[in-house]
Amino acid sequence: MSPFTGSASRTEEWRHLRLTLDAGVATVTLARPGKLNALTFGAYADLRDLLPELARDGSVRALVLGGEGRGFCSGGDVDEIIGATLAMDTGQLLDFNRMTGQTVRALRECPFPVVAAVHGVAAGAGAVLALAADFRVADPTARFAFLFTRVGLSGGDMGAAYLLPRVVGLGHATRLLMLGEPVRADEAERIGLISQLTEEGRAGDAAQALARRLADGPALAHAQTKALLTAELDMPLAAAVELDAATQALLMNSADYAEFHAAFTEKRPPKWRGR
Amino acid sequence: MSPFTGSASRTEEWRHLRLTLDAGVATVTLARPGKLNALTFGAYADLRDLLPELARDGSVRALVLGGEGRGFCSGGDVDEIIGATLAMDTGQLLDFNRMTGQTVRALRECPFPVVAAVHGVAAGAGAVLALAADFRVADPTARFAFLFTRVGLSGGDMGAAYLLPRVVGLGHATRLLMLGEPVRADEAERIGLISQLTEEGRAGDAAQALARRLADGPALAHAQTKALLTAELDMPLAAAVELDAATQALLMNSADYAEFHAAFTEKRPPKWRGR
Amino acid sequence: MSPFTGSASRTEEWRHLRLTLDAGVATVTLARPGKLNALTFGAYADLRDLLPELARDGSVRALVLGGEGRGFCSGGDVDEIIGATLAMDTGQLLDFNRMTGQTVRALRECPFPVVAAVHGVAAGAGAVLALAADFRVADPTARFAFLFTRVGLSGGDMGAAYLLPRVVGLGHATRLLMLGEPVRADEAERIGLISQLTEEGRAGDAAQALARRLADGPALAHAQTKALLTAELDMPLAAAVELDAATQALLMNSADYAEFHAAFTEKRPPKWRGR
Repeated sequence: MSPFTGSASRTEEWRHLRLTLDAGVATVTLARPGKLNALTFGAYADLRDLLPELARDGSVRALVLGGEGRGFCSGGDVDEIIGATLAMDTGQLLDFNRMTGQTVRALRECPFPVVAAVHGVAAGAGAVLALAADFRVADPTARFAFLFTRVGLSGGDMGAAYLLPRVVGLGHATRLLMLGEPVRADEAERIGLISQLTEEGRAGDAAQALARRLADGPALAHAQTKALLTAELDMPLAAAVELDAATQALLMNSADYAEFHAAFTEKRPPKWRGR
Repeated sequence: MSPFTGSASRTEEWRHLRLTLDAGVATVTLARPGKLNALTFGAYADLRDLLPELARDGSVRALVLGGEGRGFCSGGDVDEIIGATLAMDTGQLLDFNRMTGQTVRALRECPFPVVAAVHGVAAGAGAVLALAADFRVADPTARFAFLFTRVGLSGGDMGAAYLLPRVVGLGHATRLLMLGEPVRADEAERIGLISQLTEEGRAGDAAQALARRLADGPALAHAQTKALLTAELDMPLAAAVELDAATQALLMNSADYAEFHAAFTEKRPPKWRGR
Repeated sequence: MSPFTGSASRTEEWRHLRLTLDAGVATVTLARPGKLNALTFGAYADLRDLLPELARDGSVRALVLGGEGRGFCSGGDVDEIIGATLAMDTGQLLDFNRMTGQTVRALRECPFPVVAAVHGVAAGAGAVLALAADFRVADPTARFAFLFTRVGLSGGDMGAAYLLPRVVGLGHATRLLMLGEPVRADEAERIGLISQLTEEGRAGDAAQALARRLADGPALAHAQTKALLTAELDMPLAAAVELDAATQALLMNSADYAEFHAAFTEKRPPKWRGR
């Protein structure tokens, strides 16, 4: 157990998503296939709470986020979310929208890489969850649609107006967020929205393989790479270079760095410990 | 009339560009076709003044910016601008260059999307005006050239060194701004500088169709999407997510959001009011 | 000699790289071909010191950075750097990593464009040196690999987690920095990592030709374009536009701007003086 454990207890059961853990790889599955994995208040809240809990736990080194059934995630449920918000007061509306944004911050700030496995539809909040992942492994059926304006809302939802221009550039991002049109796998690959395009039906397996490789490799180095990529989007060059220097000085004391050198010298593959 | 109207009167006649208004769509045409729509002091000043005036007016929901004749805009007039600036003192030079930058800020900050309709040359300041638009609808004759260094000036003119790296990435932006070489439509599309490529001679019509769609749709949602895209280029993730939350909480009280839900429930298309 | 010369003397001999100067074009060659130009402490230190010294000198208007032999640069030497750092204390580790970051800052902040001529391998720190250049002129043998995680370190080394997302977008940057996989010339061109792709064996000549053109052209305008591109990555739009206005007002008093107008009026090519 981590020495940095306080009074908070671990959640016994995640009721609004499926979690499996396998030797450093966590797999989170949106599992409401009859509704194309449409998100409910409970699903958002579980995502918001699960990621910091996994971070505290310390045993997760990579996470796969996927959807069961015909697609990845169709976004907020029209009945259970849009309908419900119409009855909310100002404070509740703000609380709800802060929660959705917190899931995106949790994905960007958790200390392990997140691999989204995308097949079929990734729409609305589902598209933003995939966007907030570090890797998007998608098959040719993948279809991203940031369709917030289609329901009368801002295309800048859950950080999409921050993230998307930094992934595909301001021109494409404006078009996608303003019009809410679907982006199919070939266009998504062309504009840099997809990290890896697989054969049909293979996104899940490929995402697992990537997460396994990340978890079994120099996982501390991977975690720091993610942290710096996230932080340095918001930093000037001089500060970024200083952060890099402190980070590398730290990692040069790590077990894995010494192991690399030993393995190289002994002409054998390194045995990564992720520390 | 807007309740937020003070003493300032509306401009009776815009003498340095052509303005037409049609049910929420403003069309601004650079109309000096004999000079490839080269910009004069008056044209810059009119662009700087027109956009805030249209914003105050409140009836414009989308704007098309185009050029009459053989091209979009050849940039600052060599005689009327370059020649004149050679006789200016320091204060006047600063005033002039601040004015040109203010036109770009006005394009980025006006509360409606701007669609540039580009055919033929978009050079110098003309290229930056197109760059500052939200959409660039171009036909195969379009040719962008950020040719400031060709006249001995900095490629960073009117915000180009800010905007272009955020649209096409730092590598392409450095090449285009440093060398001032023309970018033809196919390259512009490949690097993300064009939003939509049309058939030859169809950029104007396609831009009008897009503006019409934007104006007739959930226009308040479009306006907020633009505002967030502009603002979040300059914000850290945590602040962006908070801005998104406040914006969506606001729009969840809008007429259009309720209308979407009603229309969805009644299985009919929504009647957007832009409010 | 520059009037801004103090007590510091010029370095007589750069022992860890090769420097040649030719009418405004400096050529820096990593010249340890037997080790694929692997970097040593001395090579980093010379790069850190050389660029500000050339900047003070004032005669350099463009710089080519290349490598002798089979490739550009294989990065930090496994024996001389990785091995040595394993014996360092905390202060020394920080000093070393600050030095490597300072070479990147020096490349981004020197007042002349830098053209990297890339053939063969550009790995680790070598890839970041190329990334920090303004132009990457590469031939089909070029192979970039940000392989820091492969040695157990953070992919954010020497500013790579700052620069790479701004060149190729966050998605590609995450993949390249996290996995350390090689990027071949065709992919590098497709994602915007290469400025110019040459025929095999021609990267050096093409880089020289580009540097010559930059040095013989309006070099002050080129220098300011670089300075603004670097600065405006870290500035909000309103500040960027103000910086542009001040810069152009300044350059409108330059000799080259007046010369452009005179040459245009007299229908002759301008004679650039770089002032």
